[in-house]
Amino acid sequence: MLNALVHTIPVAALPPSLGDNTGDLDRLKKALAPHLNGAIPVVPYHRLAKVAGRFRAAGFQGSAIINVLPGPPVLVDFLPQPVVILAGMALDLGTTHLEATLLDLGTGAILARADLENGQIRYGADILTRIHHAAKDEGLAELHRAIIDSVNQLAAELAGAAGLAVAEIRALSVSGNTSMVHFFLKINPYHLCREPYIPMVNAPDPCLAGELNLAIHPAAPVWLLPSVGSYFGGDLISGVLASGLDQQTETCMLIDVGTNAEVIVGNREWLIACAGAAGPALEGGVARMGMRAGPGAIEHVRIDPDSGEIRYETIGKGKPKGLCGSGLIDLVAELYLTRQIDIRGKFRPQADGDRLIPGSDGYQFVVVPGKDSADGQPVVLGQVDLDALMRSKAAMYAILTTLTNQVGVAFVDLHRIYVAGAFGRHISPRQAIVLGMLPDLPLATYEPVGNSSLAGAQRILLESAARQRCLELVKKITYIELNVNQEFMLRFSGSRFIPHTEHALFPSVPFFDGE
Amino acid sequence: MLNALVHTIPVAALPPSLGDNTGDLDRLKKALAPHLNGAIPVVPYHRLAKVAGRFRAAGFQGSAIINVLPGPPVLVDFLPQPVVILAGMALDLGTTHLEATLLDLGTGAILARADLENGQIRYGADILTRIHHAAKDEGLAELHRAIIDSVNQLAAELAGAAGLAVAEIRALSVSGNTSMVHFFLKINPYHLCREPYIPMVNAPDPCLAGELNLAIHPAAPVWLLPSVGSYFGGDLISGVLASGLDQQTETCMLIDVGTNAEVIVGNREWLIACAGAAGPALEGGVARMGMRAGPGAIEHVRIDPDSGEIRYETIGKGKPKGLCGSGLIDLVAELYLTRQIDIRGKFRPQADGDRLIPGSDGYQFVVVPGKDSADGQPVVLGQVDLDALMRSKAAMYAILTTLTNQVGVAFVDLHRIYVAGAFGRHISPRQAIVLGMLPDLPLATYEPVGNSSLAGAQRILLESAARQRCLELVKKITYIELNVNQEFMLRFSGSRFIPHTEHALFPSVPFFDGE
Repeated sequence: MLNALVHTIPVAALPPSLGDNTGDLDRLKKALAPHLNGAIPVVPYHRLAKVAGRFRAAGFQGSAIINVLPGPPVLVDFLPQPVVILAGMALDLGTTHLEATLLDLGTGAILARADLENGQIRYGADILTRIHHAAKDEGLAELHRAIIDSVNQLAAELAGAAGLAVAEIRALSVSGNTSMVHFFLKINPYHLCREPYIPMVNAPDPCLAGELNLAIHPAAPVWLLPSVGSYFGGDLISGVLASGLDQQTETCMLIDVGTNAEVIVGNREWLIACAGAAGPALEGGVARMGMRAGPGAIEHVRIDPDSGEIRYETIGKGKPKGLCGSGLIDLVAELYLTRQIDIRGKFRPQADGDRLIPGSDGYQFVVVPGKDSADGQPVVLGQVDLDALMRSKAAMYAILTTLTNQVGVAFVDLHRIYVAGAFGRHISPRQAIVLGMLPDLPLATYEPVGNSSLAGAQRILLESAARQRCLELVKKITYIELNVNQEFMLRFSGSRFIPHTEHALFPSVPFFDGE
Repeated sequence: MLNALVHTIPVAALPPSLGDNTGDLDRLKKALAPHLNGAIPVVPYHRLAKVAGRFRAAGFQGSAIINVLPGPPVLVDFLPQPVVILAGMALDLGTTHLEATLLDLGTGAILARADLENGQIRYGADILTRIHHAAKDEGLAELHRAIIDSVNQLAAELAGAAGLAVAEIRALSVSGNTSMVHFFLKINPYHLCREPYIPMVNAPDPCLAGELNLAIHPAAPVWLLPSVGSYFGGDLISGVLASGLDQQTETCMLIDVGTNAEVIVGNREWLIACAGAAGPALEGGVARMGMRAGPGAIEHVRIDPDSGEIRYETIGKGKPKGLCGSGLIDLVAELYLTRQIDIRGKFRPQADGDRLIPGSDGYQFVVVPGKDSADGQPVVLGQVDLDALMRSKAAMYAILTTLTNQVGVAFVDLHRIYVAGAFGRHISPRQAIVLGMLPDLPLATYEPVGNSSLAGAQRILLESAARQRCLELVKKITYIELNVNQEFMLRFSGSRFIPHTEHALFPSVPFFDGE
């Protein structure tokens, strides 16, 4: 019964009389206990006068609002009418982008969706710059305010779309990387990026929206997905939850690629995780023509091996504006297969023809000429973007091999590889294999799980078992620090070719040597 | 082990390393769990950055401060050194007077004592006036501020006497009547004095000192003794706790007399309580020459039946300033026994001689002439004071008889009668019996328990069993509302004579009829 993070319980208490002098709040608590398996709820001081006053004003009848947190249930509000929709917000607190849904906590139905750029970007596109900004006077306060403002904007949008007031959002679950959670909670991120990379807290206890100056109901509980370390955050735990990795009998893997590549491998017996910097190549907004997977983003590319014609699909089917991560991978894989780039990821001017033009910082390959694009500007891929992608793909593969090697599992032993994030939603694993980014396994091994960070946050809102499971599974995870791992460094060097220096690792990919 | 409301636990954790990336706060919680029977403490959001920051700054070694409340233990602070004295304040939150002690929570030793007039008196000497004041704009806020200011003043005095900073007081237990608790918590007392006399809350959950703007440590838990109803407050529950009434095999009674007379009778099986207005006669500061039991107060009076000489004792042995409650009862009993007042409590001019002088509102009896008093003004007893005392004593006896009659217990069946409050500390039960205020029982039946409100608050600070017992015993108490009780009204009329209209009830008291 007690599943959602917040509950509403209908109350119809007898009014007080000379024969029953129970205090107002005590009366309400007594009426609620049978609905709470006999537990007497507690009322935090700052809600006392409101709850008791509203209960009396409503004639001792109406609906109580109960937060379900560790310890006794918490009675936070009383409304005179039955609560038709008890709304909760699930939030994926991304470094560059926030994505959120509004759920009906009674039915689990999604009432609205929204997304927004992270307002902290003005203090730095990447986490490291923001961590440094946080060390300045007022820096942390600015970053905190920026993210709270963004969340409030999202909340207002969600509430508006569902026809609710923003203060009618009664719960919030937050899934974010460890740094974002530190900014969100306004706690010092200084040690996150300094050896030995220690968070101020991995598993913060739930707090209340009012404590963070959130615009949703001030007594809404804010439940944050716990992290495992500085580089393995709650967003990944959310992914484990959503994919069910921690409940599988067979060994599986979850991969999430953004600026960092985070990987976890295991089953219901054990879980081992690591993370490493993958570079910004796959993050929308970082590569010159890169963009987030949204309308106008080229998400799939094919190059006709005979004619050299480039065919592409954009999200929303409109004119192209840029390349999202999956489009970028498709494009580069096709450029390799049509031999327009070499195994080091360098353009081959002799093969690229007219499409290759010199730019201010090296060659640029014209994917879409200006006349066919959304804004009249050509969509191009620069050598610098290509170099960045090569580093990212090398880091990804090096992480995967280091991790599996450490646990003594071969890639072929993996029953399933869940691919998470915006990357996972659109990527074609085949093209990632061509690049040597993902291991050369049957395509059926790969299962995209979409924004599993958001999916996990949604489950946190709805299922007490999911909340419990999260707290337990983080304790089970062994984390391997790659920042100081020699093996990783060696493997990274070997992976900076397409598909790899050891061609035998990628039997399905054509290998064009000695050009 | 977990007895005091606040604990300190020494911590010596290993510093983080690449092989152990536990977050700072998670590390501290883990180190504490073995000292908390395996329970993982929670950290409220507003303490998170402080606790984690101080733990790191102290090199992961020092002392944690833990609040022991319902639900998981609450980690609220971290200090680099061992805590020598963990101090808690026990407070008797009286309508006219506050009394407090500072305890060493480690040893239970009393470090300091202090008392102070309740600063709310400027808004009304009696509770009813203050409840009416609370209904005005800002009225409740003013009353709240006044009591918090008084408590802060007391806390500063206690801390100073113990050589501590006021913020080193880490816990507060509060025992007060229901109205005072409402003012203290800044919650609406409107319905307390209106039929059916319902508190906003009888058993408030603990809050934190910072939430009430108290000057002691902001994260100090504030534990309030629960009340049974508007007229039977936490101060009485404190008395039950201190006297052990709820644990006796034989039926006993606890009496507390102030402006209200509160009585509870019972044993470990059952408890029945009632309360009624006794009038202000016995409260210091209300009767014209009345004063609190403090230095200069006449606390005992004897009148030589032959010479008419008045002998008295003052508290502190100095010159008299006025009469405290026990002195007043002694005086009036002696005036009756020497036939200077009649059975209706009226002066008998023919017997009072020179001591009786006319005043602006009737006769005044000169107890101490100006030349012998502390301030040169005579200490007098006016007919109006006498009339007030007659009402008080009648109310007291009517309450006792109504209650025992309702439960079918005769006075002689009472194993012990605990007499609480300033009244109980100094009163001679014999003289109260002469007046017909207390039943005519062997004097050994009466046991003064002093300020049991404060004594109970002290136990709350030190003993988790006492906290638990309080919450359980309030549920066991049946409360009888006397404000609308016909039997009480009848018994009150019969009690407005010395000792009583039914002389047979007081066989030990001389009866002077038909004068």
